[in-house]
Amino acid sequence: MQVSLIILAAGQGTRMNSDLPKVLHRLGAAPLLHHAMAAGRALDPERTVVVTGHGALAVDKAALAYDDRTLTARQEEQLGTAHAVLQAEAAMQGASGDAIVLYGDTPFIRAETLEAMLEARARHAVVVLGFTAADPGRYGRLVARGDTLDRIVEYKDATDQERAITLCNSGVICADAETLFRLCHKVTNDNAAGEYYLTDIVALARAEGLSAGLVLCDEAETLGINTRAELAQAEALFQQRARSEALENGVTLTAPDTVFFALDTTIGRDAVIGPNVVFGPGVTIESEAEVKAFCHLEGCHISRGSDVGPFARLRPGAELAEHVHVGNFVEIKNAILDEGVKVGHLSYIGDADVGEFTNIGAGTVTCNYDGVMKHRTRIGKNAFIGSDTMLVAPVSVGNGALTASGSVITEDVPAEAIAIGRAKQVNKEGLATKLFEKLKSIKASKAKGQS
Amino acid sequence: MQVSLIILAAGQGTRMNSDLPKVLHRLGAAPLLHHAMAAGRALDPERTVVVTGHGALAVDKAALAYDDRTLTARQEEQLGTAHAVLQAEAAMQGASGDAIVLYGDTPFIRAETLEAMLEARARHAVVVLGFTAADPGRYGRLVARGDTLDRIVEYKDATDQERAITLCNSGVICADAETLFRLCHKVTNDNAAGEYYLTDIVALARAEGLSAGLVLCDEAETLGINTRAELAQAEALFQQRARSEALENGVTLTAPDTVFFALDTTIGRDAVIGPNVVFGPGVTIESEAEVKAFCHLEGCHISRGSDVGPFARLRPGAELAEHVHVGNFVEIKNAILDEGVKVGHLSYIGDADVGEFTNIGAGTVTCNYDGVMKHRTRIGKNAFIGSDTMLVAPVSVGNGALTASGSVITEDVPAEAIAIGRAKQVNKEGLATKLFEKLKSIKASKAKGQS
Amino acid sequence: MQVSLIILAAGQGTRMNSDLPKVLHRLGAAPLLHHAMAAGRALDPERTVVVTGHGALAVDKAALAYDDRTLTARQEEQLGTAHAVLQAEAAMQGASGDAIVLYGDTPFIRAETLEAMLEARARHAVVVLGFTAADPGRYGRLVARGDTLDRIVEYKDATDQERAITLCNSGVICADAETLFRLCHKVTNDNAAGEYYLTDIVALARAEGLSAGLVLCDEAETLGINTRAELAQAEALFQQRARSEALENGVTLTAPDTVFFALDTTIGRDAVIGPNVVFGPGVTIESEAEVKAFCHLEGCHISRGSDVGPFARLRPGAELAEHVHVGNFVEIKNAILDEGVKVGHLSYIGDADVGEFTNIGAGTVTCNYDGVMKHRTRIGKNAFIGSDTMLVAPVSVGNGALTASGSVITEDVPAEAIAIGRAKQVNKEGLATKLFEKLKSIKASKAKGQS
Repeated sequence: MQVSLIILAAGQGTRMNSDLPKVLHRLGAAPLLHHAMAAGRALDPERTVVVTGHGALAVDKAALAYDDRTLTARQEEQLGTAHAVLQAEAAMQGASGDAIVLYGDTPFIRAETLEAMLEARARHAVVVLGFTAADPGRYGRLVARGDTLDRIVEYKDATDQERAITLCNSGVICADAETLFRLCHKVTNDNAAGEYYLTDIVALARAEGLSAGLVLCDEAETLGINTRAELAQAEALFQQRARSEALENGVTLTAPDTVFFALDTTIGRDAVIGPNVVFGPGVTIESEAEVKAFCHLEGCHISRGSDVGPFARLRPGAELAEHVHVGNFVEIKNAILDEGVKVGHLSYIGDADVGEFTNIGAGTVTCNYDGVMKHRTRIGKNAFIGSDTMLVAPVSVGNGALTASGSVITEDVPAEAIAIGRAKQVNKEGLATKLFEKLKSIKASKAKGQS
Repeated sequence: MQVSLIILAAGQGTRMNSDLPKVLHRLGAAPLLHHAMAAGRALDPERTVVVTGHGALAVDKAALAYDDRTLTARQEEQLGTAHAVLQAEAAMQGASGDAIVLYGDTPFIRAETLEAMLEARARHAVVVLGFTAADPGRYGRLVARGDTLDRIVEYKDATDQERAITLCNSGVICADAETLFRLCHKVTNDNAAGEYYLTDIVALARAEGLSAGLVLCDEAETLGINTRAELAQAEALFQQRARSEALENGVTLTAPDTVFFALDTTIGRDAVIGPNVVFGPGVTIESEAEVKAFCHLEGCHISRGSDVGPFARLRPGAELAEHVHVGNFVEIKNAILDEGVKVGHLSYIGDADVGEFTNIGAGTVTCNYDGVMKHRTRIGKNAFIGSDTMLVAPVSVGNGALTASGSVITEDVPAEAIAIGRAKQVNKEGLATKLFEKLKSIKASKAKGQS
Repeated sequence: MQVSLIILAAGQGTRMNSDLPKVLHRLGAAPLLHHAMAAGRALDPERTVVVTGHGALAVDKAALAYDDRTLTARQEEQLGTAHAVLQAEAAMQGASGDAIVLYGDTPFIRAETLEAMLEARARHAVVVLGFTAADPGRYGRLVARGDTLDRIVEYKDATDQERAITLCNSGVICADAETLFRLCHKVTNDNAAGEYYLTDIVALARAEGLSAGLVLCDEAETLGINTRAELAQAEALFQQRARSEALENGVTLTAPDTVFFALDTTIGRDAVIGPNVVFGPGVTIESEAEVKAFCHLEGCHISRGSDVGPFARLRPGAELAEHVHVGNFVEIKNAILDEGVKVGHLSYIGDADVGEFTNIGAGTVTCNYDGVMKHRTRIGKNAFIGSDTMLVAPVSVGNGALTASGSVITEDVPAEAIAIGRAKQVNKEGLATKLFEKLKSIKASKAKGQS
């Protein structure tokens, strides 16, 4: 049975006190929107339609960045959730099967929960996701018998008896797509806020004699983000879960509370992660690799037996084969380091290929930018790049070649050759003493001039 | 109505287990003393007198560093708070209006609280700041009716009934300066500790038929620092507040608990601050700027649209105009970077001016120190500084000029010129292989010699 | 009276989900095993026998690394704790006096507790370490009168009344070595698990008419590590204690929760440690030294008045004399920096000696590795190493000498000489403009070719 997702992401999020649309604020180094999309993706949906409004261009772009098959629909005015769903109708034209309505600012929903809703659809025309609230406050209450939902009562309309119910409405709804749209068209805005509420389709379904069902999830899954403080709390919750999961998977985290995971961070068993490591998106680390303290990693792959840091930055496209060593104050970007490569100190390796067992000396730079274009550096295997070598790309260094310390390499170096590009040292006896005396006398006369 | 401040800062702070005077220990990257001075400064005081004793020279200096109009008075022997206040009498000669007595080790007092005390002076000759203590312990108790203070009872003199009072004395007092000193002269040291207590002026005022008043504040405002553990707790409290305030002001803090603010840190709305950022004194960050993880900033200004880090250090005098990019392992000190400047990697830019849209290559250093004096580097706009360029100051590079990678620039470079200061590369075929063979044979013979 | 230690460290630690033997997982930057050994070492033991099994070679090595007089004994099959103790019998041959049985995965045991057990041996043949459990769960219960232990009841054999006892067995036992082994030989594996339990020697001793005694410790001391989550909690506990202890000793920790101590970190009074500092093993810091934010230190010594960081890495063998300054993005390894040396920026100083008051410019590298061997660099006092100097070791720079910025130093520099190894700068007027125009035209034609 096919399923499609309709993700509502048009709101401004006024309480965020931000020009950035709410669903683009980041959690686990990914826009909030991606979290809802990630939960939905596990269902292998036929279509995903993201309904955008505030900051629509940016939100559309983020949706497509996550999955370029995503469809977007525009809600020009925010007239309520049922209205938002209806904006997705055109994009859903011809989609078969069920549709689940999700929210771009509700990042913790789990795929398993959505699957349970789909399963409940075998028994009910409309399925609502509910949760038992620790503090039900002003949530809508669910009046249910078993997994059958009688009705949803808004807080303001509820009797005291109904307000005592702790079973609350998350807003997530699943129905056959055709049914969903048909019922949404029937929703009116005849209420205090003048809004079209998606919730109203439950009563409309029941009025048609259709059955409504209930699936329960943990309250934490329904956590929505409305303020920066809530976002910071959500981030703390996300990180706490990611850290626990990593520990359970056999990752060594010396100081779990100081490691920041991204939504898609993947780390193998017996990998060791030191204190103060920050993962951006797109990092995979194999078993038995080590990331030392103070590292910043994104879009990179670290293979078994490699070690990185402390104070290393791996940027997108950094691919480390097995037993690679990247040391301190080193930046790697868009570069493939083959097995056993060592880049120990104070280097920038960008847009480069480095062959196996090559040693890169301290202070080496791949000069990949000429002011207009970027170029690639290719270094063979078993090469020795002397300290402070400037590799002016495009340039290549052959297998087993050596560059002398302090050389600027502008031409290709053949295999097994030594390349030297530096001046000969000259010692001028006694001159340092004379120079310092002269400088001190200049300083003294300047000071005198000022007094 | 004019007001002056008398800040008591003469104590040693024996329980700090430190040679540093207590009020110079840091909270929010500023001496404790500055916190009390900051609260007072909001009142635009006529005079501020800091009474110093232990480590007086250093404390005087810190007081003047905060505000060079501050007066200091010496308390040679620590004979009690009333005695300390009297040491300020000479410095207060001729000051009109009220005086508030504050404490250098009580950093959380708020300006609003001091203003409330001044306002209460309209009704009372002497105004005492009190608080309701969660655990009153051995604090002096305030016997009051409404905002009228009958008397202060020391814990040891209190009846059981009086000990049940939870309204306690903070020690902060406000009175007309003339009255304050007159009453302080009447205070005796006829007590177990043989000290002259400022608190006694309340009873002396009442004995003269003067009215004493009470202003209440939150207990947290009266928190004093006596041990390093208390200082660490105060730091945690300070940071917690600074983080909350930043979030409320619309700043994005990915991981608030890992960001350390200074007393005077200012950050605009929609600025993004990554994990593990440490602010020293004197940092302002405009809206929509980004500070990535692992940055250390002090005395710098970051304009709208600029991004910094990860692993960047901005030191005093670093001024970044709009859309400047400062990348990893970069240090900027006393340097003005105009709009659109990029310093991406592994560079030290100190004592420099860099014109708009200039690109600074990896490994660039402004060699600002000749062993005796510091000199300035001036780089024009649209220039391209090749990787590993040494700019030996004083030196200038003109608009649109280029320095070749690996060059040492000792002479001025005209606009639009290319400056080259490096040797030509020579490749010596096959020599690398021979060299490594020779080195291995030396190593082997050395090992043999040792066996 | 002599004492020996028998430390059981043969278990696999299946629940750690790791290939690394459990006792080699790290706590406070040291293997768990070292913590138990450290507690025992304070007793100045005659012998220390570590019983190893899973990963025995690696565990033996770690035991010897802590103290090379350690004896190791192999337990091929894990048949129970009494069986494990018996494996130590051969290594204990001829040892006089008492033996204490400890556990390699119980890192928090204190030396004072072990001393109390030894003292109790004056009154009892066998002494058991017990604790009052907050949640006794399935621990064995201790039935005792005063410090006399009647018997140990396993949970599964206990009556309801016995289960109500909160006094529990830690497993740590002390006895005369001869008695210990004699009783262990009597232990049978006639129980559900088919294991030989060390605990059974208490009943066996009592059956012989010997007295059994009880010493109590805090439950936290008996905390064993079974999962990575427990290890992370233990790390948090270890750090919390280390931080409190440092504060009590008069160390300034700006943000204690972000400082990570090792088992053997030693810091003097009035030293200042900024936020985000990570200590590896073997660090000593003298009074009044400062370590700024974001530093990573191991195996190094920092003397009074020196300051390090932010963003500095000191590796084993880094020895900083008084008033040394190590700045940002600097790595020091196996190097002695004499009084007043400054290494401010972006440098790697490895395998080097640097004389007093020498200034090392930004971007300096000691090129200590030639691809086969490591060599040493020796720099005299009052020298000035210009920025971006490559010191190709083995090489020396004399007292008061200067190296010009950008020089590659391959030959010794005499005292007071200036060494220059760089090309002369040439300015080519107007060429930058022409070059950029050419590059832009190439880029444009490439883009055209692709369209």
